[in-house]
Amino acid sequence: MNIGYIGMGIMGRPMAHNLLKAGHALYVHNRSPEKCAPLVKAGATALDHAAAVTRAAAVVFINVPDTGDVEEVIFGDHGIAQEASESLVVIDNSTISPDATREFARRLKRQRGSRYLDAPVSGGDVGAKAGTLAIMVGGDKEVFERCRGLLEVLGSTVVHVGAVGMGQTCKACNQLFCALHLLACCEGITLARRAGLDPKTMIEVVSRGAGGSWSLANLGPKILRRDFAPGFMIDLLSKDLRLGMELAGRLQTCLPGAALARQLFTAAQAHGLGRQGTQALARIYEHLNQPETQM
Amino acid sequence: MNIGYIGMGIMGRPMAHNLLKAGHALYVHNRSPEKCAPLVKAGATALDHAAAVTRAAAVVFINVPDTGDVEEVIFGDHGIAQEASESLVVIDNSTISPDATREFARRLKRQRGSRYLDAPVSGGDVGAKAGTLAIMVGGDKEVFERCRGLLEVLGSTVVHVGAVGMGQTCKACNQLFCALHLLACCEGITLARRAGLDPKTMIEVVSRGAGGSWSLANLGPKILRRDFAPGFMIDLLSKDLRLGMELAGRLQTCLPGAALARQLFTAAQAHGLGRQGTQALARIYEHLNQPETQM
Repeated sequence: MNIGYIGMGIMGRPMAHNLLKAGHALYVHNRSPEKCAPLVKAGATALDHAAAVTRAAAVVFINVPDTGDVEEVIFGDHGIAQEASESLVVIDNSTISPDATREFARRLKRQRGSRYLDAPVSGGDVGAKAGTLAIMVGGDKEVFERCRGLLEVLGSTVVHVGAVGMGQTCKACNQLFCALHLLACCEGITLARRAGLDPKTMIEVVSRGAGGSWSLANLGPKILRRDFAPGFMIDLLSKDLRLGMELAGRLQTCLPGAALARQLFTAAQAHGLGRQGTQALARIYEHLNQPETQM
Repeated sequence: MNIGYIGMGIMGRPMAHNLLKAGHALYVHNRSPEKCAPLVKAGATALDHAAAVTRAAAVVFINVPDTGDVEEVIFGDHGIAQEASESLVVIDNSTISPDATREFARRLKRQRGSRYLDAPVSGGDVGAKAGTLAIMVGGDKEVFERCRGLLEVLGSTVVHVGAVGMGQTCKACNQLFCALHLLACCEGITLARRAGLDPKTMIEVVSRGAGGSWSLANLGPKILRRDFAPGFMIDLLSKDLRLGMELAGRLQTCLPGAALARQLFTAAQAHGLGRQGTQALARIYEHLNQPETQM
């Protein structure tokens, strides 16, 4: 199939690469065109704008940072909407506002008759490369079923979670779990260290019992060896928490834990840690508890 | 071996039963003596006080609610200390203060020459019955090695985590994880419900990705079917959070997430939910977000 992929970031590039390896003809575009080079080398065709990608492809994926970026890719100059047809399916792998997602889907349907799936992913760059992402998909069931094969190239858990926008809603929940689990990791490790308990041993025991989590098993050891390289960046988790709290705010829903998590990730950004991995939240706890620590 | 077990609560009774089934001669005591009846029926001997149990046994386990209860069992009238010898090992399965634990161990050693392991457990009544608890043990390595066989009757993860008191320190960390993971469960489910996303589907996807935890997999479904029966009671988790925050306070350690969790579990107690399972925290979120809800 002719596939388009717009957004060659830390997630988009390996995901597009997996579609190429699955045998699809791939047309890519990125705002900074040099990021397309590795995929062009692997056999993809880079094009100058989203409209050109849409002209070439039956399904166009989007994977860009935030709500405004998706709007620009679809409805901006040389955007998808300019070339979209009734047979086109747009699949948005970005993590953006569920409300805006519903509006984009409606607008694109009204203007061009095209279909829309919101399909945000979880699993980090590791999952993107391995094709083992969890993908939470919102949209018409029938469109989802038509695209399931493509999505299963990208992820090992592909679930239709509801109407358009519900993929993003599910992702907001997912990020709330990730953020609060990271707080638990940072606080558990902080308490262990300050009480003179070997944090490695603590993680070993706790992760095998009722206190276990993906975050503790995967990010806990990174915190201990001070490996703060991004699998997933603080700036992005912070944005996702903003989206979740905006949704909660509109729904008049009180989520004190998520609100606290958002404040602490904001502190991490204030300390210049935005482009480090989410586990670098541990540095804020070091700072809170050891004022002499260099950030 | 002749074994004593003091405290026939929701955890102590099945743990003592496993020691009996492993072929040990078992001497039990409980403040309310009728709770010993099932074990007596299974072959144990019930005695009137901890001193009598100590006279009969080479190793005496304790499993009672709080720090003061352990002190009473060891140093009170007819307590363990009255009959303790140099060959005695006291193993405390309770969850109590690490600082008090160190003091109890020192005092018992000084008064009677006996040895002490703090060995709090994680895994709930299910793990207690199945003998699959995680046990975090503080104390002399040599005493630990002598008692390892007994502990392995009770748990599938038995780890020596450091000197006496460190078992309790590790348990405080463990409970911090459990409490914050429960906040995440309650908030994720609340957000999903209020946004019109099926929470069952949300749990299905999130628990398979980077947002997964033991709590989500095990307590999430209980929350959905409003099964608030205690595997582990809110009153006890609330006490454990108090112990953790007391430790953190003494160490001048800032743990905002754990502090928030403590407040919310306190609210649950204020609403009369103390003897329900920890997952009943979800009812506080219902109350926060749907004022018409009957508690």
